[in-house]
Formats: sequence, structure tokens, C-alpha cells
Amino acid sequence: MTKAVVLLSGGLDSTTTLAIAKAEGFRPYALSFRYGQRHAVELAAAQRVAVALGVAEHVIVDIDLRRFGGSALTADIPVPKGRPAEQLAEAIPITYVPARNTVFLSFALAWAEVLGASDIFIGVNALDYSGYPDCRPEYIAAFAHLANLATAAGVEGRQRLKIHAPLIELTKAQIIQRGVALGVDYGLTSSCYDPSPDGRPCGQCDSCQLRAKGFSEAGVPDPLLMRYGGAEGS
Amino acid sequence: MTKAVVLLSGGLDSTTTLAIAKAEGFRPYALSFRYGQRHAVELAAAQRVAVALGVAEHVIVDIDLRRFGGSALTADIPVPKGRPAEQLAEAIPITYVPARNTVFLSFALAWAEVLGASDIFIGVNALDYSGYPDCRPEYIAAFAHLANLATAAGVEGRQRLKIHAPLIELTKAQIIQRGVALGVDYGLTSSCYDPSPDGRPCGQCDSCQLRAKGFSEAGVPDPLLMRYGGAEGS
Repeated sequence: MTKAVVLLSGGLDSTTTLAIAKAEGFRPYALSFRYGQRHAVELAAAQRVAVALGVAEHVIVDIDLRRFGGSALTADIPVPKGRPAEQLAEAIPITYVPARNTVFLSFALAWAEVLGASDIFIGVNALDYSGYPDCRPEYIAAFAHLANLATAAGVEGRQRLKIHAPLIELTKAQIIQRGVALGVDYGLTSSCYDPSPDGRPCGQCDSCQLRAKGFSEAGVPDPLLMRYGGAEGS
Repeated sequence: MTKAVVLLSGGLDSTTTLAIAKAEGFRPYALSFRYGQRHAVELAAAQRVAVALGVAEHVIVDIDLRRFGGSALTADIPVPKGRPAEQLAEAIPITYVPARNTVFLSFALAWAEVLGASDIFIGVNALDYSGYPDCRPEYIAAFAHLANLATAAGVEGRQRLKIHAPLIELTKAQIIQRGVALGVDYGLTSSCYDPSPDGRPCGQCDSCQLRAKGFSEAGVPDPLLMRYGGAEGS
């Protein structure tokens, strides 16, 4: 089986991406980051998902992006609540973490080269998304170009590195429908930027709102809310 | 003064790059990495250099590239010794660390964005170098392209990120001459891939050989060797 590195936050998108990588026949190596995020409970979700989907290996890398701050997720800045999902992509929000996907993809690239893997999966999407610049197709294309110049594997022609972003043109509802069809249990995942210590979602942050809109449009209940008996404020 | 992030390993090239950034009028923020490198004594050199050159701030980030290995610098693989300097760039050597400069530049990008800095300096060079793919001009150009797509600052037009690689077309001798003219004390630096615990260079690894060739061609003595009374094997 062909190895692939899959970035896995423990959220809905990366979990679906992992399921897609498996369905496409890849042997997945899951990579997560303890980066100082406010919502570090997502790492417990990543571990549950990695076990449930049977990855070849799951590595959690420690990096301290809180050292730089600059985001509501990595500094003492409040997470915005109650913004309508329709307005989210109009401006880049304060939950944007500077250069986060570039940092994550650079580690994925390092691991892929050592594994001899040519394939990296990332669950970015550019439709029902948070307006982050490093989730757009032109960004992913630029990273793929860089990857093949950056590595011995790319330069020597041993590997032609490919960045897979299978969700990039899907709506949140389509992502959920795809995952449900693949048997994903979304009750294992965690999307909230500002959950309770026990992992209960706040229901009000951008990520919770995008998730709720997606489940609503997909016409299926969110098993995570059933697990907690609703979001915190509901 | 304009802020700039300067990648500082504590070696000859990055120290010269820092001196150039200062000479060009930038206020330098130095960034180093404890990445599991065999030659972690270089971080003491980075600290000496940061103090001597008066940086605005010096951050050492902890990242464990040893978790992935794949290099003589981050795994239990012997460092090659005694290869003639003229042959070094003929193939990518085992001291190449997969995706290292991409990882380093991604953190530099994160810090630059938070600082509001548009300028990142890196001491790569592509003439008297080790044959690493992520030291070439086309790689640096690809990262600059990525940086402006990756960040809120780039996308919103607040910053036009620029990657400065002022050594990229200099020989090692020219780099040393430039540094000497700027008053750099190369006795503070550390280049060796496999030094003694006290920092004494081995004199035989690729990096020591490139350094020796550079000082020889520049026609100046290496103050580091004077400090230690010669390299280990000499």
C-alpha cells in the first residue's frame, strides 16, 4: 500500500480527509500538533479518530506557536462568538493563526520525505470556511511547487510530491455527506475553538456555526451534540 | 527602524547574514531552533552572536525533527568525514535534513506576520555549499511566492513579504570577506556538524572543510581555530 501523510486536527474536515485517503487506498500516517491551541482537547479527538480509522502511525508534534501569538487561538484574545455563518469568509478573522498551515505542511513534508511518501493530505476547504488565506487552492498549489524544490526526493526525481486537498471545493454539507457515506463517526471529532474542559462545544464560535450549518444542510443530526446533549449555550 | 526576522544557526553564514541585515538598516529579530541537531552547541554560538550584534530579540524554538530522523544530523547516522570540499555539491549528502529550511522559514513567516515585519533573512548560499536542495535560488523564490499567499498580511496587501538571501551567489571566501569588513568576529560562530562537547570543531566534516577552504581563499586566519588551538584532529 502507498504511504501518505495525513494532517489530522481531530476536526470534522481532517477526519473526513483521513477517511478519503483510506478509501483511495493509501496507508495513512497521521500527523497532529500540540501548538499551544486554546482548543487542545481536539488532540484527544485526533487520537480517537486515528484509532477508529486504523492509521499506520499517529505522531503528535509539540510546537509552541503561542510563543508568537497573534491569534485568538494562540494568545489571550477572545474567540468571536455569534457571527452568522454566511459572513465568515468576508474578512480574515482573529482566529487565523499566522502561517499555521505552512508550519503544519512543512512538518508533513519532512515526515513524507523520511517515509518515502509522495502524498500529503490536508483537509482545507475554500467554500464553507473561515476565510483563512492558507486554505485556498492557489496556496495549496504554491506549497506543492515548493515541496518539489525543497526536498532531496523531489530534486532527485525519486518522489513527485503531491498535496491532496480533497475537500477544497466541497461545501460543509457535502463534506459531511461524503464522510457519512464512508462510515465516519463524527461523534469522535471536535470542531469548537473554545470548548469546555470536557470537550463540550460552545455552539457559538465560527467553527461551531459552520459545523451546525453543515449538518443542517446535509439533513443529518450531529452525533457530537447528541453525545453532549447539545452545545454549551443551547 | 524596519523589523526583520533573521534565521540564526550560529554558523558563519547566518552570522554574516545578520551583520548584513543590520548594515542594511534593519532591526533584527533572531530566530534559532533546537531541533534535535547533533551539533546543538551551535545554539550557544547563536546566543553569543545575538548578543554581540545587538538583536532586538532572540527566540530559540524547540522542535523535534529527530522524531522523523532521516539525516546524519538528526539520527544515529555517522557524519561523513574527509570528503574533499570540491566534491561536496555533486550529490545531496546524508547531512541533508528533510525539509529543514521549509520548517525554519515557516516559523520565521509566522513570527514576521505577528511582528508586522515584511522581511526575512536566511543565510543560504548556492556556490560553496553542501548540495542541499533548499539552499537554491529557485527554492527561495518559491517560498517567497508561498509566503504572500499564505498570510493574512500578504493577502490583504498590508505586507509584501520578501525573503532576503544575501549570500546566495557568494563564495565562502566572499562571505568571510564581507563579514570581516562588517566587523564580524567569526570566533563566536560554530560551523562543525560533529563537534566535541566543548564545541571544538572536528575539522573533517563537510562544514568544517567548506569553512577551512573559505578562510584559506579569503586569506585570513579562522579565529575559531585560534580559540581552540586548531581543530580536533589537527
